[in-house]
Amino acid sequence: MAALLRPVGAASVILDDALGRVAAIDIVARLNAPPFPVAAMDGYALRWSDAGAPLPCTGAIKAGDTVGARLSPGTCLRIFTGAPIPSGADTVVIQELTEQVDGRIVLLPGAEPYRHIRTAGSNFETGQSIVRAGRRLNARDIGLLASSGHLHARVYSRPRVAVLSMGDELSDSLSPGGGAQIIDANRPTLKALVRAWGGIPIDLGIVRDDPDTLARILSTVDVDLLVTSGGASVGDFDFMGQTLAGLGFKAAFHKVQMRPAKATLFGTLGSLPILGLPGNACAATIAALIFLKPAIALLGGAGRQDAVREWAVLGSAIAAVGPRTTFLRGRLDREAGGCLSFTALPSQDNAMLSGLAGADAVVVRPPSAPAARTGDSVEIVRFDTVAGF
Amino acid sequence: MAALLRPVGAASVILDDALGRVAAIDIVARLNAPPFPVAAMDGYALRWSDAGAPLPCTGAIKAGDTVGARLSPGTCLRIFTGAPIPSGADTVVIQELTEQVDGRIVLLPGAEPYRHIRTAGSNFETGQSIVRAGRRLNARDIGLLASSGHLHARVYSRPRVAVLSMGDELSDSLSPGGGAQIIDANRPTLKALVRAWGGIPIDLGIVRDDPDTLARILSTVDVDLLVTSGGASVGDFDFMGQTLAGLGFKAAFHKVQMRPAKATLFGTLGSLPILGLPGNACAATIAALIFLKPAIALLGGAGRQDAVREWAVLGSAIAAVGPRTTFLRGRLDREAGGCLSFTALPSQDNAMLSGLAGADAVVVRPPSAPAARTGDSVEIVRFDTVAGF
Repeated sequence: MAALLRPVGAASVILDDALGRVAAIDIVARLNAPPFPVAAMDGYALRWSDAGAPLPCTGAIKAGDTVGARLSPGTCLRIFTGAPIPSGADTVVIQELTEQVDGRIVLLPGAEPYRHIRTAGSNFETGQSIVRAGRRLNARDIGLLASSGHLHARVYSRPRVAVLSMGDELSDSLSPGGGAQIIDANRPTLKALVRAWGGIPIDLGIVRDDPDTLARILSTVDVDLLVTSGGASVGDFDFMGQTLAGLGFKAAFHKVQMRPAKATLFGTLGSLPILGLPGNACAATIAALIFLKPAIALLGGAGRQDAVREWAVLGSAIAAVGPRTTFLRGRLDREAGGCLSFTALPSQDNAMLSGLAGADAVVVRPPSAPAARTGDSVEIVRFDTVAGF
Repeated sequence: MAALLRPVGAASVILDDALGRVAAIDIVARLNAPPFPVAAMDGYALRWSDAGAPLPCTGAIKAGDTVGARLSPGTCLRIFTGAPIPSGADTVVIQELTEQVDGRIVLLPGAEPYRHIRTAGSNFETGQSIVRAGRRLNARDIGLLASSGHLHARVYSRPRVAVLSMGDELSDSLSPGGGAQIIDANRPTLKALVRAWGGIPIDLGIVRDDPDTLARILSTVDVDLLVTSGGASVGDFDFMGQTLAGLGFKAAFHKVQMRPAKATLFGTLGSLPILGLPGNACAATIAALIFLKPAIALLGGAGRQDAVREWAVLGSAIAAVGPRTTFLRGRLDREAGGCLSFTALPSQDNAMLSGLAGADAVVVRPPSAPAARTGDSVEIVRFDTVAGF
């Protein structure tokens, strides 16, 4: 997938629209911060070589005052956090380490030379890298961009991701006739995930199990990625794979060694990348986490952004798994002072969408992993670290 | 804050607009899932009492076929995952546990009675709770809502949150004059956080240190929450607190025992809740995590939603802290098979916005906590578990 998916474009946006967007260039500071030396604490600005004697305080400087105040020899100035250091001063002594004696300022034991001055550029300097290309901008980045002189940011464009569900049995709403219709949960889920992961979802609806209809849609769709679900293993027949093959689809992979979601495929039809997910809602959602999230991140310039694996200890034993990488849904508990504990849900039935909605994480078991006992360390993906999931 | 902030309203939205919104009512399933018994695996549907003899296979049922097929005594039917169980069948035997002999189906050792049938309502039943009021809807919830017969969801309205910065020294852009202007990073940061946390940000701009201007703005603003930054401790003078007091502000708290962000206040001016954050950008951002996030969650119906504290081990020692709850910024590393490790940044200077942007977490030290050593367990708040942060 990383070899086939490239960022789709870039544009400048105002900072109000930059949250969650991905920087398209390395962004550097346009100024020094602070722009001039400033006080790091409230106190008195003075020349340390004058500090042996009581010093008259001849004025005050606060944040926002213009640069240019001068400190006369043998005096001090009251100064507040963020205020420009007056020329001639080399030290700020915090007010707690001073006292007034006969209207003059006397330093107390503990006062130290050359302290509490932030030099120009000590936070960042003009030209210094502030945000690297490929970083997804959070609110802290946006504050840093503003403070370094930026009103706009150049970001990658959001990829347009079309979502389509395959299957004669699917419907978007309750079927009044009471036939064998099943409500399509995949498009609502996948559209929400496309949005949460930085793409623009485009809904192509439900497509019946008819090769001509599918071919007509594929020949007209103009998007950066098409995500389908279903049609991959209706019984013995791989409808999606066979129809795509007939149209000239080049598969990068077709079937993967994971459980659930073995029936996942990816490749290109002409210039259109297609990700085919299983029809089962739990399998499609887990496969989206593993394949769709990196695909959107690659198209959106953020790199692969694989689901981050962390460690937890098992709250209860899990059985050995088969020859495929296996994802088990479960709940997390926090143990005081320690690690997270993971307890697999009693049912891993892929039809249990309610179980998936109630889960906090999946454990990821490598192929043919043996049974594991309570207290063993296992790899998990935490849903609360995945946007929108 | 929890005593003063109430949800601001509710409305129905289509599922396409429901991501990140907070359910305003308990939502129950409008149908049974599955609506009728279905096969949980690909295999053969049969009556177990017939299974001693080879069974002719008289047809196939797949997902989407209408309900109503009948199994004749002494026969079996090919059946695929999700397909309706024919009347008369009580068992699905997976295809791997069968073989064809003379055109009939023979069961292999391991086949078991009454297996692989999902009964009607086994995922959820009509009237069963699907989403609780107060839950922030993720993509999995949206899929579950769709599959349980919902096209819309009733959600709390987004609170309108006005953001204002106080200070003569502040500017929105590079000052060509080269005076002592400081670029306001707080409004860009706070607006992004309001949006990330489910509110509608309203920008009231920079307000000079002038009581009349502030009073005029406060008398006309029509929002659910006003967030200010700055003006709380310009040297010895608490401009914001004193101006608000003169207008009849009722403080719920004014100054908090935390570091940074001691100069935080909260209360009401008439019916307007006001959260006053410090002017320093790092302090304002940390205070937003601790106070603004719960405030927006309360107004948005999601409960307090305090920043979640987790555990990590120290990657390097940290010093004892003073009498206030202390937040130290740092980096996280993952230790193989174990817990997260937290290493405090060398500078905790509150002016270092670049340091805040590069941090992964804060450690939370209780008041007067002693020094802690490498390997000690400490409480942290992970930024990657906080939307937009």
